[in-house]
This record gives sequence, structure tokens and C-alpha cells, in this order.
Amino acid sequence: MSDVHDLVERYLAAWNETDEQRRGAALRALWVEDGGYADPLVDVHGHDAISAVIAGVHDQFPGYVFQLEKPPEEHHGRIRFSWGLASKPGDESVVVGTDVAVLAPDGRLSAVHGFLDRVPAAP
Amino acid sequence: MSDVHDLVERYLAAWNETDEQRRGAALRALWVEDGGYADPLVDVHGHDAISAVIAGVHDQFPGYVFQLEKPPEEHHGRIRFSWGLASKPGDESVVVGTDVAVLAPDGRLSAVHGFLDRVPAAP
Repeated sequence: MSDVHDLVERYLAAWNETDEQRRGAALRALWVEDGGYADPLVDVHGHDAISAVIAGVHDQFPGYVFQLEKPPEEHHGRIRFSWGLASKPGDESVVVGTDVAVLAPDGRLSAVHGFLDRVPAAP
Repeated sequence: MSDVHDLVERYLAAWNETDEQRRGAALRALWVEDGGYADPLVDVHGHDAISAVIAGVHDQFPGYVFQLEKPPEEHHGRIRFSWGLASKPGDESVVVGTDVAVLAPDGRLSAVHGFLDRVPAAP
């Protein structure tokens, strides 16, 4: 598995981690100190803030899982990939997004710029 | 027209500008000093380097024009939009890409992270 695929797998695993301590360790391995994450709903920096964003998604979608929707492409330290959020692995994703991640010199994430491609219809 | 739509229109106009002096002025209005542009083929910084990249595209695709393929979405100073390169305006694009642009505090571009969605078939 390439470094880039491995990174994205670890990224999705961190988003799926419900244990706060294990998630914190995973996020520290993934992002540099004060690394950034933004999507249409949030714009945060640092491992603790990113962990809180993930906890918020688990609260909103209990039991749902993040899965890879489109394999990563990489050039010049930028990675683009699409993820989905599904009720269980392999199910159709109710939310799909595309992230562009920018790597720091040490190979960890410095910034993730996220956009949404599919969102649930309003109730 | 929103600021974001206006910015993206000016961005595409700069990519279409064949006059080097006018293109330089347009790029200086669009990007901060030492602003970055990267796509799968190049990774450059600064107005002159970006201008040279654009000149290279004009050499490779003489007479072709950049056009908007998908309207821009913006959140937290990040803009995503898709562009196409066509033989004339309104024609089907032979190349399509998606750029994620990150704004500097002054509203100009600090970095553009570009990816390709459609490329011409190999001859």
C-alpha cells in the first residue's frame, strides 16, 4: 500500500475512532501541531479541536462509518480523495465529501480543505 | 455578482490572457506576492512563474479558452470550482479540472491546489 493510501486509510480510521484517547493519538500521528481542518461547517486548528469536530459527527450520526468513496490522487504534497459516511461499511453513503489535504515537510497533514458533494435531503 | 464569482471570473480571464503584460497585471491583482499554484504538472510560486505556466498552456493549446465548468463554492476562505479548456467558448472541454483556492487575509489568492478530472485520451 502506498504512503498516500496508508495515510488516507489512517485518516478515515481516525474519523471512525470513538475512543477519545485512541482518536487523540491517531490525530497526533496524522496532523502537525496546530494543523488545520475546515469544511463548510467548521474551521479549526489543533488536535483537540479536530477531535471535538469528529466527536460531534459521532453524536449526530451514531454508529455511522466513514469509508473511502474515491481513491486518493497525489501530486506535490497535495492529496485529493473522496469519503462517504454510511450507516454501515459498504452501504450507500448518505454524506459524501472531497478533501484536499496539504502535507507538511514531515509528511503529516498541515491543512485539510474539505467540501461536501452529497448531503442528506432536508427532512 | 458575488465577490467569489467575480474572483473566479478574473481567475479564468487571467488564464485566457495571451498578452504577457496584461496577464502579469491580472495575476498581481489575483495572487499575493509569492502566492502558489500547483497542479499535477507544476508546483510554482510567484506571479512570473504562474504567468510562465499559463504561457506554456497557450503554447500547447493555441486558441483554446478556459471556461467555468462548475460554479464556485466558498467556505472559510476556501473556494472550490471546476474549469474546462475548450477549443472555443461553450464547446465541450477537452480538459476539466477542479481547483481549491485558499484566500489570504487581503482577499487575494495565497495558494491554488489544482487537480485534473478529465484529460485528453492518449493519441
